Amino acid sequence: MDASVKNLGDPKISSPVRASEWVEETERVLYSLSAEDLEKDISSGVKPLSFLKAGPRKKIFFDVSKLKCAIVTCGGLCPGLNNVIRSIVLTLYHAYGVRNILGIRYGLQGFIPQYGHSILELTPEVVSEINELGGTILSSSRGPQNISEIVDALERMNIGILFLIGGDGTFRAAAKISDEIEARHDRISVIGIPKTIDNDILYLSRSFGFNTAVSIAAEVIGCAHVEANGAPNGIGLVKLMGRESGFIAANAALDKRYANFVLIPEADFEMEGPFGFLSVLEKRLAERKHAVIVVAEGAGQKYCGINGADPSGNKRLGDIGIYLKDRISSYFREKNIEINLKYIDPSYTIRSVPATSDDSVFCGFLGQNAVHVGMAGKTDVMVGIWNEQFVCVPFDMVTTGRKKVDLNGELWSSVREATGQTLFRNPDETAV
Amino acid sequence: MDASVKNLGDPKISSPVRASEWVEETERVLYSLSAEDLEKDISSGVKPLSFLKAGPRKKIFFDVSKLKCAIVTCGGLCPGLNNVIRSIVLTLYHAYGVRNILGIRYGLQGFIPQYGHSILELTPEVVSEINELGGTILSSSRGPQNISEIVDALERMNIGILFLIGGDGTFRAAAKISDEIEARHDRISVIGIPKTIDNDILYLSRSFGFNTAVSIAAEVIGCAHVEANGAPNGIGLVKLMGRESGFIAANAALDKRYANFVLIPEADFEMEGPFGFLSVLEKRLAERKHAVIVVAEGAGQKYCGINGADPSGNKRLGDIGIYLKDRISSYFREKNIEINLKYIDPSYTIRSVPATSDDSVFCGFLGQNAVHVGMAGKTDVMVGIWNEQFVCVPFDMVTTGRKKVDLNGELWSSVREATGQTLFRNPDETAV
Amino acid sequence: MDASVKNLGDPKISSPVRASEWVEETERVLYSLSAEDLEKDISSGVKPLSFLKAGPRKKIFFDVSKLKCAIVTCGGLCPGLNNVIRSIVLTLYHAYGVRNILGIRYGLQGFIPQYGHSILELTPEVVSEINELGGTILSSSRGPQNISEIVDALERMNIGILFLIGGDGTFRAAAKISDEIEARHDRISVIGIPKTIDNDILYLSRSFGFNTAVSIAAEVIGCAHVEANGAPNGIGLVKLMGRESGFIAANAALDKRYANFVLIPEADFEMEGPFGFLSVLEKRLAERKHAVIVVAEGAGQKYCGINGADPSGNKRLGDIGIYLKDRISSYFREKNIEINLKYIDPSYTIRSVPATSDDSVFCGFLGQNAVHVGMAGKTDVMVGIWNEQFVCVPFDMVTTGRKKVDLNGELWSSVREATGQTLFRNPDETAV
Amino acid sequence: MDASVKNLGDPKISSPVRASEWVEETERVLYSLSAEDLEKDISSGVKPLSFLKAGPRKKIFFDVSKLKCAIVTCGGLCPGLNNVIRSIVLTLYHAYGVRNILGIRYGLQGFIPQYGHSILELTPEVVSEINELGGTILSSSRGPQNISEIVDALERMNIGILFLIGGDGTFRAAAKISDEIEARHDRISVIGIPKTIDNDILYLSRSFGFNTAVSIAAEVIGCAHVEANGAPNGIGLVKLMGRESGFIAANAALDKRYANFVLIPEADFEMEGPFGFLSVLEKRLAERKHAVIVVAEGAGQKYCGINGADPSGNKRLGDIGIYLKDRISSYFREKNIEINLKYIDPSYTIRSVPATSDDSVFCGFLGQNAVHVGMAGKTDVMVGIWNEQFVCVPFDMVTTGRKKVDLNGELWSSVREATGQTLFRNPDETAV
Repeated sequence: MDASVKNLGDPKISSPVRASEWVEETERVLYSLSAEDLEKDISSGVKPLSFLKAGPRKKIFFDVSKLKCAIVTCGGLCPGLNNVIRSIVLTLYHAYGVRNILGIRYGLQGFIPQYGHSILELTPEVVSEINELGGTILSSSRGPQNISEIVDALERMNIGILFLIGGDGTFRAAAKISDEIEARHDRISVIGIPKTIDNDILYLSRSFGFNTAVSIAAEVIGCAHVEANGAPNGIGLVKLMGRESGFIAANAALDKRYANFVLIPEADFEMEGPFGFLSVLEKRLAERKHAVIVVAEGAGQKYCGINGADPSGNKRLGDIGIYLKDRISSYFREKNIEINLKYIDPSYTIRSVPATSDDSVFCGFLGQNAVHVGMAGKTDVMVGIWNEQFVCVPFDMVTTGRKKVDLNGELWSSVREATGQTLFRNPDETAV
Repeated sequence: MDASVKNLGDPKISSPVRASEWVEETERVLYSLSAEDLEKDISSGVKPLSFLKAGPRKKIFFDVSKLKCAIVTCGGLCPGLNNVIRSIVLTLYHAYGVRNILGIRYGLQGFIPQYGHSILELTPEVVSEINELGGTILSSSRGPQNISEIVDALERMNIGILFLIGGDGTFRAAAKISDEIEARHDRISVIGIPKTIDNDILYLSRSFGFNTAVSIAAEVIGCAHVEANGAPNGIGLVKLMGRESGFIAANAALDKRYANFVLIPEADFEMEGPFGFLSVLEKRLAERKHAVIVVAEGAGQKYCGINGADPSGNKRLGDIGIYLKDRISSYFREKNIEINLKYIDPSYTIRSVPATSDDSVFCGFLGQNAVHVGMAGKTDVMVGIWNEQFVCVPFDMVTTGRKKVDLNGELWSSVREATGQTLFRNPDETAV
Repeated sequence: MDASVKNLGDPKISSPVRASEWVEETERVLYSLSAEDLEKDISSGVKPLSFLKAGPRKKIFFDVSKLKCAIVTCGGLCPGLNNVIRSIVLTLYHAYGVRNILGIRYGLQGFIPQYGHSILELTPEVVSEINELGGTILSSSRGPQNISEIVDALERMNIGILFLIGGDGTFRAAAKISDEIEARHDRISVIGIPKTIDNDILYLSRSFGFNTAVSIAAEVIGCAHVEANGAPNGIGLVKLMGRESGFIAANAALDKRYANFVLIPEADFEMEGPFGFLSVLEKRLAERKHAVIVVAEGAGQKYCGINGADPSGNKRLGDIGIYLKDRISSYFREKNIEINLKYIDPSYTIRSVPATSDDSVFCGFLGQNAVHVGMAGKTDVMVGIWNEQFVCVPFDMVTTGRKKVDLNGELWSSVREATGQTLFRNPDETAV
Repeated sequence: MDASVKNLGDPKISSPVRASEWVEETERVLYSLSAEDLEKDISSGVKPLSFLKAGPRKKIFFDVSKLKCAIVTCGGLCPGLNNVIRSIVLTLYHAYGVRNILGIRYGLQGFIPQYGHSILELTPEVVSEINELGGTILSSSRGPQNISEIVDALERMNIGILFLIGGDGTFRAAAKISDEIEARHDRISVIGIPKTIDNDILYLSRSFGFNTAVSIAAEVIGCAHVEANGAPNGIGLVKLMGRESGFIAANAALDKRYANFVLIPEADFEMEGPFGFLSVLEKRLAERKHAVIVVAEGAGQKYCGINGADPSGNKRLGDIGIYLKDRISSYFREKNIEINLKYIDPSYTIRSVPATSDDSVFCGFLGQNAVHVGMAGKTDVMVGIWNEQFVCVPFDMVTTGRKKVDLNGELWSSVREATGQTLFRNPDETAV
């Protein structure tokens, strides 16, 4: 696969960043860590996949005195958005001396005149304590906007670097914005910082906000545990984020290990039948009188799935939390077994909190590296972390798929051990 | 009103508690604090209402060496339950030397043999760190049980003092249990500790768990504020506890002052019409692009109310949160105004957390005073706080009504000022 | 005692506050709650001590359109300062329409030209989220300043109401400022809001910040407990605030009950001798291998006391924490017993945190009532809470002494029971 | 360097772990991630340094039915100790079926009969909620013990796998214990889990507790910031952990960016002279009226250093916090500049808290991998994480040095930018 990074042109201006920190264009970070794989690749003449290191360059592309930058946040909230904004602003301002930084309000809507959203001028003073707040001071919106109008706006505002903080849908738009810019022969760098609370970005170790989300989710599972223990046949049912990948559910379940069942999109399961989920739950209640269930929002869509896509182009999901709540209730009602089910959907109280220290520091580095990469004139590229090195990944590599929980890997195996859960599969099906 | 307290008999045994702490039977705490009222009462020969002070007595009724006590927790979870249990156990054990303390599991069900719930022996070791946990180590259940069977169980187990921690329904049962005990000429003291997270107990300043609930509720309102600001026409809608009284909603709204609308059961409001809630909300969105709404679960029942009562005998409530969510959505959809409504129902994540320091210390005093009052042979009585003094209030005084938010008082006036909200009343109605 | 409140003059202007909230001048709050005492007083013709209720009046003294107010925070930090400032500003602005509100920076220094501190204009925007921050946005300072210069400054700035948030020293100054104003026939109201994290203000139930302080202090005692259990003969020694009163130490010790020894200024104790503190500690270690000690800063001054006063006129204290640390270490070294003492002094991490919800709401009411009282033209008076009613207490009543932990009361008795601690007195002394 | 791992013998017993999770002996994790380096190595025939992957093997060495394991925690407290203990116990019990697990109390002292410490039997019930508690349920101690006596104890107790959780000193002891075991031809596996809150272990990405420490340290810096702003010329001085490496100080400073000065062991600095620390601090106060200083305990030892080593063999450090506090105070006193210095040493309140979610999950994997590696009969080896893979590192590789903050790397460069701090060097010295 090609992980090469586009440049707007030859950077010719001396960087104000200290020489000792400069990164060479030849510095690349290997994707695979396996000594075996690497030796195999090299001995067979295959160039192993590697990413360009991010970081400051000796030469920069933009003339700082004239440079105008814009920052936009898109899609749903995620802890750390303000930290990334702050880091971009402080690095542009203090490390490079950029004095014109615009905050585009309400996501991509902010570029479209008809919405009439105002622009927020971003200075070190404006961003100095925004890290204490959840959400994004720029506000956000979902859904695509007309690409041509966006580039018109960038031209009109005379933007040199556009920093886009968003998810999958945003990066599909970003790639198109880059193409349009190239077609118009504009010199505008488009740099992405991936925002997915689910931590499901391909080629990257982690995305910001995930650490925070897991810590709050784990607390909520603790609440469900208390509620489940507080009544006869108490069931604590927690729906967590995780549209296509169950990383939050799996990690949160491993924190305090109170969950007895963890359902994620990657692991198909049967509801009904002698070895299906409901039967196993019934056995658990008979033995222990309580149960804690954690379900990622993308799990079990074969039971509750609906059609269509949301404004951002993401597949619409049926509400598996409500489905489970209703089906569990009817199942036990039919059996005349009294249960006490407490359903918790903490989505918004997770997305809106300020970042943990860990995410905060991480966001700081993300923002810095986005600035370094943009100042060097690179474009059509996302900045992220791989094996503790900040790297550049082209937009179109990232949008090819999703990182998933490996059902044979260490994470899921730990969850299975911590919960003791089975596969929830009935005989005839496992026979298939 | 008569606030006199029943006694099982004459306490004749010397108390092991230090003499300097003894409370006299003549010590009473005034209900009214108003100098004017008091003077008026006394000058007109009226005995002002006052409560018997709780606290240790010179003489106790029970022979410690033979005494067996039981503790039971009833109804929904509330922060501080474990602290009260711990305090009762430690005070019985260390201050009086009681060695037989039984924990009845799963509320009143625990007395009824058919449920087959086991009994938990309570010792200082068992309770030593339970305050760190939310919920109740005894578990709980809702709904009444056969009074006669309960008293049978008390006799069978040879209980001298029964400590009941519960709400309104529990105290109605407690009064009947006391009557049955009296009818059988048993010498069993029944002591209540009021548990209502809503803080709506008549004659008492505060109930445990309320302080904790307000602090978590305030955090959740903060999340709703962030979400509301995070999208165009963002609406953060938070449903809080408060079946008949809006104390949690009102206090939580006053903490950070992010709420723009607070709806409580005490304050009737109109949804529709030119000055109704929906119109005012629309105006707010037009002006500020976001809004935070806090609604207590008992508010607006004229719009969503249903019939019947739950197993504890409490009136069933319609779900005003869901009603508002749906009605607001349809209102703006009809007007073709895009909104982003985020609905948060944090009930279980509030009820299940451990107590704040403030509640923890308060629960300690509640438990101690319950023990002192029980050891003195008082019965059919609840222990609570009034104007910073621990007092005894007979069960039947407490169940006569609910404490309500005074719509002309300081609390609601502050909420109205903090939110700037109007009465949500249309002209013809206010004319009535 | 006379609790009458001074007025600048006859308030003649109609209040913009809703009539239903007005408080009459005749509404007074009784100091004693004892039915017995009251009856005794009244039957013997003694007027029982009562305080004027705070709250909004029908008529106000100041012409809002011309009124300028000033706020100043003095002395050490205390959680809730920003909440009080915010509440004063919002109430002045929204409830009365006052548009000129000045924040005096760095305490009383801010009035003295030679320091050159700037003035901060306070608006709803400036204070809107300051409650999320610890400390005071106005900054503070210790120590008295020239009274005449302060009044000069008030005249020069044309201040109508001065809100002073501070402790004992501040109120001694406030009384003098009031006198000087009276002598000059100025019409300036001086209103105090008592700030003492120790909760040791006479005649008042609670002071703001205390609730927050107890909750953090309790956490720190939990840390000391963990450290004490983490090593052979581990001793966790925590020094808490409490110059003359041990309320923080006593309450924090009651939260989780991890403390084995609580030393407060009110309870004299012996270090040495067979029943002294060190001997009892040695016995505890022999039996349990660990111990947690909580000491209020004003305890044991006979061992570590020094002379003099600090710039605020408060008695200088010797450092009992360091003294205990050193003496305990040398005691066991002499006995050749290895101990592992971990000393924790969390003072600044307690004083600097944002207020709990409970304190935040309380501060809101304090600020409101301060404004109501000031607008009515009252002066030389402090606003506080007594038995859940906001009241007015003249400065000179408050500075006559300190509220103390009653060694025979419920609080200390609970601490003694929770710790199991003795009096630490040797035979010949108890014989005296 | 040789990273090969010792084996007690050939593992011949089939593992009960699912086959899909087995790791092959050939799976190795590369140390360097640089594509350039790797290509260079391989083209020049050098075998690049790599570590054996941890994880479950197809065959195990020990007969589970007879196996007895022991766990011991050594040295100072660190968040996550209980999580590691819990994970080891649960994995031994549930994944392998081991039924004899002993907790050695008070560190290496627990092996030495003369101390008389009891042994704690560890079961899933015992460890089920210990993760909620800080510290270690086994307690700990510092200092070495006689190696021969330790091995005597292991033989006497018939231990098959010893899990040692500790730091540098512990691993030096562990290497000697392994040697002694080998000399005696015993079949005892010695597995280490590195515990250093400073995150300064060579060859490993992170050590447990570090994440938690940074988050609490960042909060404390926030307190110092509030205190510094709360008084004229306020200085908040925070001493953090970091004996030889400043990772905690650097990361905590990057969270909220309140620190104006960060002093770490790796960065030498001058106190005095025109460009020394004190002069720069003076300038900062003149300009901004406040300053926040963060100092790692190992910084500036040339000013405060002392001789000797502590019982664990670690170099004794002079107290740089107290030194700075005193020197700063005297410096400004001499200049007659009033300052308000607030000194905070949060060491014990950081070490004693429960682990963050992130550390908790990490500790779970550490414990699991330690068990897998031990069951496979590997010995004399530590389990840790490198580039998100769990690996085996021989004891003697780890103890050869410390991981340090790279003064030219991204972390320190960010700190320098966030603080704006200079090198604190005077002309003649930089000239050298």
